Amino acid sequence: MTGLPSYCDVMIDPQRYPRLSRIALPADLRQFPESELPAIADELRAYLIEQVAKVGGHFGAGLGVIELTVALHWLYETPADRLVWDVGHQCYPHKILTGRRDTISTVKQKDGVAPFPKREESEYDTFGVGHSSTSISAALGMAIALQRMGDERKVVAVIGDGAITGGMAFEALAHGGGMGDQPGGEEPNLLVILNDNQMSISENVGGVTRMLGRLSGSRTLNAIREGGKKLLGDKHGAPARFVKRWEEQWKGMVLPSTFFEELGFHYTGPIDGHDMDALVGALKTLKGLKGPQLLHIITTKGKGYELAEGDQIGYHAVSPFDPAQGMVSKGGAKKPTYTDVFGDWLCDMAATDPKLMGITPAMREGSGLVRFSKEYPQRYFDVAIAEQHAVTLAAGMACEGVKPVVAIYSTFLQRGYDQLVHDVAIQGLDVLFAIDRGGVVGPDGATHAGNLDLSYLRCVPNMLVMAPADENECRQMLTTGHLHPGPAAVRYPRGTGPGVAVQAELQPLPIGQAQLRREGHGVALLAFGAIVPAAEQVGADLGLTVVNMRFVKPLDRDMLLSLAKAHDGFVTLEDNVVAGGAGSGVAELLAAEGITMPVLHLGLPDAFQHHASREQLLAEAGLDAAGIRHSVLARWPQLASGAAHHSAVG
Amino acid sequence: MTGLPSYCDVMIDPQRYPRLSRIALPADLRQFPESELPAIADELRAYLIEQVAKVGGHFGAGLGVIELTVALHWLYETPADRLVWDVGHQCYPHKILTGRRDTISTVKQKDGVAPFPKREESEYDTFGVGHSSTSISAALGMAIALQRMGDERKVVAVIGDGAITGGMAFEALAHGGGMGDQPGGEEPNLLVILNDNQMSISENVGGVTRMLGRLSGSRTLNAIREGGKKLLGDKHGAPARFVKRWEEQWKGMVLPSTFFEELGFHYTGPIDGHDMDALVGALKTLKGLKGPQLLHIITTKGKGYELAEGDQIGYHAVSPFDPAQGMVSKGGAKKPTYTDVFGDWLCDMAATDPKLMGITPAMREGSGLVRFSKEYPQRYFDVAIAEQHAVTLAAGMACEGVKPVVAIYSTFLQRGYDQLVHDVAIQGLDVLFAIDRGGVVGPDGATHAGNLDLSYLRCVPNMLVMAPADENECRQMLTTGHLHPGPAAVRYPRGTGPGVAVQAELQPLPIGQAQLRREGHGVALLAFGAIVPAAEQVGADLGLTVVNMRFVKPLDRDMLLSLAKAHDGFVTLEDNVVAGGAGSGVAELLAAEGITMPVLHLGLPDAFQHHASREQLLAEAGLDAAGIRHSVLARWPQLASGAAHHSAVG
Repeated sequence: MTGLPSYCDVMIDPQRYPRLSRIALPADLRQFPESELPAIADELRAYLIEQVAKVGGHFGAGLGVIELTVALHWLYETPADRLVWDVGHQCYPHKILTGRRDTISTVKQKDGVAPFPKREESEYDTFGVGHSSTSISAALGMAIALQRMGDERKVVAVIGDGAITGGMAFEALAHGGGMGDQPGGEEPNLLVILNDNQMSISENVGGVTRMLGRLSGSRTLNAIREGGKKLLGDKHGAPARFVKRWEEQWKGMVLPSTFFEELGFHYTGPIDGHDMDALVGALKTLKGLKGPQLLHIITTKGKGYELAEGDQIGYHAVSPFDPAQGMVSKGGAKKPTYTDVFGDWLCDMAATDPKLMGITPAMREGSGLVRFSKEYPQRYFDVAIAEQHAVTLAAGMACEGVKPVVAIYSTFLQRGYDQLVHDVAIQGLDVLFAIDRGGVVGPDGATHAGNLDLSYLRCVPNMLVMAPADENECRQMLTTGHLHPGPAAVRYPRGTGPGVAVQAELQPLPIGQAQLRREGHGVALLAFGAIVPAAEQVGADLGLTVVNMRFVKPLDRDMLLSLAKAHDGFVTLEDNVVAGGAGSGVAELLAAEGITMPVLHLGLPDAFQHHASREQLLAEAGLDAAGIRHSVLARWPQLASGAAHHSAVG
Repeated sequence: MTGLPSYCDVMIDPQRYPRLSRIALPADLRQFPESELPAIADELRAYLIEQVAKVGGHFGAGLGVIELTVALHWLYETPADRLVWDVGHQCYPHKILTGRRDTISTVKQKDGVAPFPKREESEYDTFGVGHSSTSISAALGMAIALQRMGDERKVVAVIGDGAITGGMAFEALAHGGGMGDQPGGEEPNLLVILNDNQMSISENVGGVTRMLGRLSGSRTLNAIREGGKKLLGDKHGAPARFVKRWEEQWKGMVLPSTFFEELGFHYTGPIDGHDMDALVGALKTLKGLKGPQLLHIITTKGKGYELAEGDQIGYHAVSPFDPAQGMVSKGGAKKPTYTDVFGDWLCDMAATDPKLMGITPAMREGSGLVRFSKEYPQRYFDVAIAEQHAVTLAAGMACEGVKPVVAIYSTFLQRGYDQLVHDVAIQGLDVLFAIDRGGVVGPDGATHAGNLDLSYLRCVPNMLVMAPADENECRQMLTTGHLHPGPAAVRYPRGTGPGVAVQAELQPLPIGQAQLRREGHGVALLAFGAIVPAAEQVGADLGLTVVNMRFVKPLDRDMLLSLAKAHDGFVTLEDNVVAGGAGSGVAELLAAEGITMPVLHLGLPDAFQHHASREQLLAEAGLDAAGIRHSVLARWPQLASGAAHHSAVG
């Protein structure tokens, strides 16, 4: 964290935060008596609201775990005891208490605090996260490792009810819960805290929610318990053990305990996650217990900031705002993002094709499906955080002749990779992948980057892979993929494009045809997707040929062969890693055709990028116009002469 | 299925199979009265034993679902009604009843019947499978599609208790079970049959097994039920509704019903899956019910063939055998497979490094972990069919300083791809992936092929990727990866290698150093992994330079630059798809260095290969010595003259 942004030197005000200002690290927190914890929680909550309001970031989830964060760091010997936060949306209070109090307002900024736990940032961040549902697996691995080394340190995972729907969380629960049953098996000493706020980013859906939801359905849990006792009374003559069993089973009818107990976890709860006494009390007991434990706490996302409690989806992650006023939506027409273009296309195509179905793994807002979900509720499927299932569900639908569209972020499609290969591509099924956040994503860091998708998609047989240069082309490619009777992917970037007007018509593109944007001489710039505008700038500046390649797979062989004859060299450009990327495909085609010519591949580096803005990261990778120009001239210095009367770039 | 092997013309004997010989398709089966079904099942079982004994194949799973297969095809209007088999190990009886009775003995052979359901083979194979845990997702997709189109056809998924541990099965159950709760949601009409034989390929483990295992723990289910009634009696005064509830809850204590019911599925069972009357009775009822239904049946893997019942792991898949005698292990020392080399290495390294931990997702036998599991039970982790969890569990372990080895098939690592990227590689954690069945696999078909791994691994930053040319190098690379303090992968093929003696010592290789195998002239053959011996043959024949590249990532830059100076062209060779493969990496390096020279990439085609032997598929892809020679000479005809006095290849 060198070169912190200048606003980070605002030190905490000891008048307003008499306790928090004395807590630089959890060891300081542990100097306070238990009775002070609620007051510390209040200060932490106020400070979080103040700081996030300044610069934006993930908000609601952190407010929901203020008490839990304080209780855990007070009771456990962090960082020696291992605390694993799932997804990490909720880690800001944790970061404030663990050495990042004074820098939290740099969150998501270049060189600032990372928005998710990150091992290299702090020893208190035991496991880097960003994708959901990993915490139980990671914590179980830690618990096993420590136990095998005879180390008594504790391990705690905190997972939301949204994240626990992910299949791998279930796999981890099943493994951890069953370990004691295996020959030579030893139960892992692990506490999983289920933070149940009935939300992930938007409302949770599915059977797990249904199960946990029974709680709220039975408004008066105690009344039920009392009623049960009354019913049986003390006089019915059954042995006491039976009464106990019966109570356990009553509990099973209104609580999700049975579910976890059947998998082998000992269930405690539910308790109010904002009641510090209850929380610390339960944790004290659990800390002394061996074996796999599950503590179920009920919290409110956005707790303590009324506007966030009232709009939990809107306040999941925020831009800077005035805490007194809340978020104010900016007036006026804003430039549509690629996500907007997709969302509109989906509704428009659904209007013309009754067989279109839309699927999202719990990303309705992020993927632009809000309007579709309202206009076509019967054809809208939010499958919860369940990427594997989302893809194979689409495959099953396609078998019956409907036309599923899987709307998914590039980085999350990695979760459904086997399903894309095994269930969709091998069978050549008619599934369209609308891949948002392809390429550089930015502030969310490496875990959310879409830098690999062209490589991992291009090697899959049967796939049609497209990357649009602008908004209108995105719409055209979605139409192309929808009409194409096989697996297709349209991969578009985060945010806005060059601002090309989007036509109303649903016009497909000819498959495998690139678009010559500019005829020049010497060198041809072959650009894929979002990088086309920058390539055009450089091409205009240096007098080079520029091609909008459009199709990563299949490539436009005819055009490439004809360009090869007329040029001295090719430059391939993409916002994907060079390794195995679209440009590599061009080189493979030339090699297969026996053509030997100079090729320069420009793309993302063979390294995980840190968090910063998309523009900053592209510039760092040399993929803005200046960087491209520089790289081209470094390879072909003689081209500089052609740029004499241009100076738009550089 | 053209060009069937000659032994397929043996028609079924109507004397021995008076009923089965009259059943070419399910429509024929449905002509028989219900009373004949047990006799048909007997014939089907005898026929399956006879046929599989002839040529080998998956065995035990099919024997376990004989009655179920007969009942389903008799009761449902297949193929109009949709029947989805999970994994497909158990599909042979289904294939026999659905048009492949007379060709089942060609299973796994080139141009013969596929070992798994395959859409292009039969309209009765509604969904191609091979990897486990996909059936509920696929069937749910079908059910939704049919319902949305107002189509009343039925959908049934059959999933084993081993496969249901996979996270995506849970995701699908949770989605399907919760659909009715969503706004505008409609319950899917779907029957999931849980085929519970307490086995996947080896014994099942984990919390799901624990849950289902309560059944066998309560030997006398009926006795418990009766006891419960007695306890409450008729005279205790509680209302009838309470008694009913209590019974339901008692059931929950000994049966897994609660688990599925909580997710929103209506549970029926358990019933004996070999009792045709019970099975048909239950299915008749369920066929008329709406909503998500789960039928739990208990079966015996290998049922009806005593030797297979007694050795369920050994008889999961078999080589040809004499039905009267059973499998006879071949005497004498056999050449060790790469799997054996790995298994021995794991035990040897475990003996020297107490921090080594071995993880398998339910593939103890296939991945060569049997000896390790016995010698180091405390360091052996079978996590069940749960590839996502397996990888992140390893990441968690690595955080605490132990050294996990994830033993996994190439094709199954696709399931843990996001975890490899997000949890291991981004954090640079010290996890070794021992990737078996890399490249061409063969008889199991496209679903089991390892043709993509070099492409999808090479694009991931921080990865060390190795491919051994022989058995001893495999051991050296495993040692290299184990000692390397970061993510590493060793990718080796199915079966045996060239037969190089394996040294006892645990010797690492220098990272990123290729091995010059032969100095020649003109063209250099740069071979990765299993294809090295074939490249050497061709190199010797044509007088070419041959390099065993060893490292896919990082490449040996120094050697490549020096070879580039001394040669007129490069040929890259690999048993991975060309797209984004190891050879593509060589071309990228040359391009980055500004070197322009002819490169020929030889690798697997951009298509999913059908099932055949590994040797057949390599030859078809032109990757045997003859094919390589041919391709090299086609590009450089002048090299033929150098081959004048050699004739070993061709």
